[in-house]
Amino acid sequence: MIYLDHAAATPVDRRVLEAMEPYFVSDFFNPSAAYLPAKKVAAEYETAKGTIAHAIGAKASDLVMTAGATEANNLAFSALRNGAESASQSLARPSSHHRHPSVLYLETEHDSVRRTAQAYGGEAIRVQSNGVVDLEDLKSKITDDTELISIALVNNELGVIQPLAEISSFLREIKLRRMQKGIRKQLLLHSDASQGLNLLEINVARLGVDLLTLNAAKVYGPKGVGALYVSHEVRLSPLTVGGGQENGLRSGTENVPGVIGFAKAVELAREHLNGNRKKYAEWRRILLSELSDYELINKKHVLDNFVVICYNGIDAERLIYLLEERGVYVATGAACAASKGIRSHVLAAIGLTEAQIAGSLRITLGETNDEEHLRKAAHIINEVVKDERERIVRRSHKLRNEK
Amino acid sequence: MIYLDHAAATPVDRRVLEAMEPYFVSDFFNPSAAYLPAKKVAAEYETAKGTIAHAIGAKASDLVMTAGATEANNLAFSALRNGAESASQSLARPSSHHRHPSVLYLETEHDSVRRTAQAYGGEAIRVQSNGVVDLEDLKSKITDDTELISIALVNNELGVIQPLAEISSFLREIKLRRMQKGIRKQLLLHSDASQGLNLLEINVARLGVDLLTLNAAKVYGPKGVGALYVSHEVRLSPLTVGGGQENGLRSGTENVPGVIGFAKAVELAREHLNGNRKKYAEWRRILLSELSDYELINKKHVLDNFVVICYNGIDAERLIYLLEERGVYVATGAACAASKGIRSHVLAAIGLTEAQIAGSLRITLGETNDEEHLRKAAHIINEVVKDERERIVRRSHKLRNEK
Repeated sequence: MIYLDHAAATPVDRRVLEAMEPYFVSDFFNPSAAYLPAKKVAAEYETAKGTIAHAIGAKASDLVMTAGATEANNLAFSALRNGAESASQSLARPSSHHRHPSVLYLETEHDSVRRTAQAYGGEAIRVQSNGVVDLEDLKSKITDDTELISIALVNNELGVIQPLAEISSFLREIKLRRMQKGIRKQLLLHSDASQGLNLLEINVARLGVDLLTLNAAKVYGPKGVGALYVSHEVRLSPLTVGGGQENGLRSGTENVPGVIGFAKAVELAREHLNGNRKKYAEWRRILLSELSDYELINKKHVLDNFVVICYNGIDAERLIYLLEERGVYVATGAACAASKGIRSHVLAAIGLTEAQIAGSLRITLGETNDEEHLRKAAHIINEVVKDERERIVRRSHKLRNEK
Repeated sequence: MIYLDHAAATPVDRRVLEAMEPYFVSDFFNPSAAYLPAKKVAAEYETAKGTIAHAIGAKASDLVMTAGATEANNLAFSALRNGAESASQSLARPSSHHRHPSVLYLETEHDSVRRTAQAYGGEAIRVQSNGVVDLEDLKSKITDDTELISIALVNNELGVIQPLAEISSFLREIKLRRMQKGIRKQLLLHSDASQGLNLLEINVARLGVDLLTLNAAKVYGPKGVGALYVSHEVRLSPLTVGGGQENGLRSGTENVPGVIGFAKAVELAREHLNGNRKKYAEWRRILLSELSDYELINKKHVLDNFVVICYNGIDAERLIYLLEERGVYVATGAACAASKGIRSHVLAAIGLTEAQIAGSLRITLGETNDEEHLRKAAHIINEVVKDERERIVRRSHKLRNEK
């Protein structure tokens, strides 16, 4: 098996699972219980949150632990003061009271941001043909009504890294101008950093984000575990109420093993950050040099483990099945869209033609790979594409002869 | 260690952890991905849901998997048609448009139901002094505006089992009368069955519930995994939007290992249902006969692993610490309330005095125990209570002598 879809899911690192195991079996106590072993678990849970927070330059108390990035993204939008409704529920309401939308989001965002933003009547910001935010478009769309802007640190289909620090510095200027004009409306920057945590140096202060989504399942941690970083100024409304855990922002017994595992995964990722970045850059180079007759889609400002290539005139969906038979697993786009056969809104946004979108593969490298994997995968992809091209030529000959 | 707080948390059964492990490490694929190994994982996830559903007489498609009982309870209330707002957010709104509340809930419910119901302007139904719902009070409070009634199958502090089948049969009569009157408003019965799944035969049709909450963490499964059973007639609004998993009702990559583990835990619980019930009944009998000088609080209609006893004049909080030093772990009430030092609303609801509430211990038996444990625990509790009583007498003598 050569697995090349690490943006969809990563296996849990053995060391992560080992770190989790005691908390399933022996240190299983409810962190809210009154006796000492439970308090010890509560303290270890806080320490784990601290480890995760530290990796982004924050403190344990800045994090709300969630059941994943989707919940964290949805929770982030509860910062909208006017929008005292959950996303899905505001969908039911016909109109907005605002002249201008209070939410802006990048058109290439993952559905968990895009649909939430749309539910709040959000307006899409355009990307350039390289997938990077169109800053002029963003600037032109910010009005005095804008409260929240959501832009993923790394796009989940292209791996394109967005210039968040540049955006936040621009937002600071706007906030200054608002203050001078006596406008007290908040202007928050939210970023889904699910895809960036394992390869990028992330610091919330340097990025200038007010809200940041993290996801354990993309960094060799467990599924069903995420976090939302929330800066001190931001006031959220919980999506669920109950026992009042996570400072009342996310009720429910803490997923202790999950958060312990997330912390271990983050620790491992941070330890190998620079080495991994170099390694993936080299692997990407090898893959692109070994592959033949493709068009590279994501060229610049790209996280090194993302390779998006297009085979014009070929159906990538078919390629996935043909490659699967040879033990190579790749994707066409986001996994959740894949299962529904929806055309990628991301590839459309960067201006690809229908044929280009239909012929595009997303290859995402990861820790299950090695150099040999990539040479072998390239070889197999080359063969499969060649066979497929020949089949298409034969079929068109046959069709011509039949006429 | 003698752990007697199984209602707060259960360890993950070794066999459950073993069932989960492959899904962390090797079968880690995103169930939404297009290639075969991912589709196999998706199928196994559905099978696991089927196992859980089967245990309550339902089908996989009737379940929405959640991150726990709290989320499931909150999601259940989204069935309220008028209440197109999430619980926490409707808290912000000053008034309701209804003459009568659309929600009724038992006053002894867990905070994840109670607070959600209160946020929707719900009215509390009284319990009798034995903790069982006061049916007359319930009947008197149901109006033509009532849409949702929430009553836990087993109370989490007393272990009292509620007569849900009797309630639902009564609700059917009301629905019939409503139909005759041309009132089309829904009348749904929701039940949090978190504490019942490991010892009671549960069948949604026989209980007559429309919505049922399940919790893996209370049946020797993993924390952070729950489910909401939703009958065909009920329409929910998702709390989060995104990739559209769980039929659009709960977006986010599926927690595959968690759900596989939940299924295994349910399977094990169902296998030993009758044996366990007998075992706990016997253990409860032994414990109560070995303990001395207590008042039994939960006498009738009780799940056999719940023993609530009161030591009048003694501070149970202090007992917990004294018992902890002797390696015995018990609770005063719900764990999430314990951490905040809140007086039990459940014990108040059944009419206990302040002194009785202050002197009450919740002992919940479970699979980490054996008969010897219980004899030893009883012995230790007796000693600690005796010492504490003597200390109090000595102190009062001393105070008298000082006067």
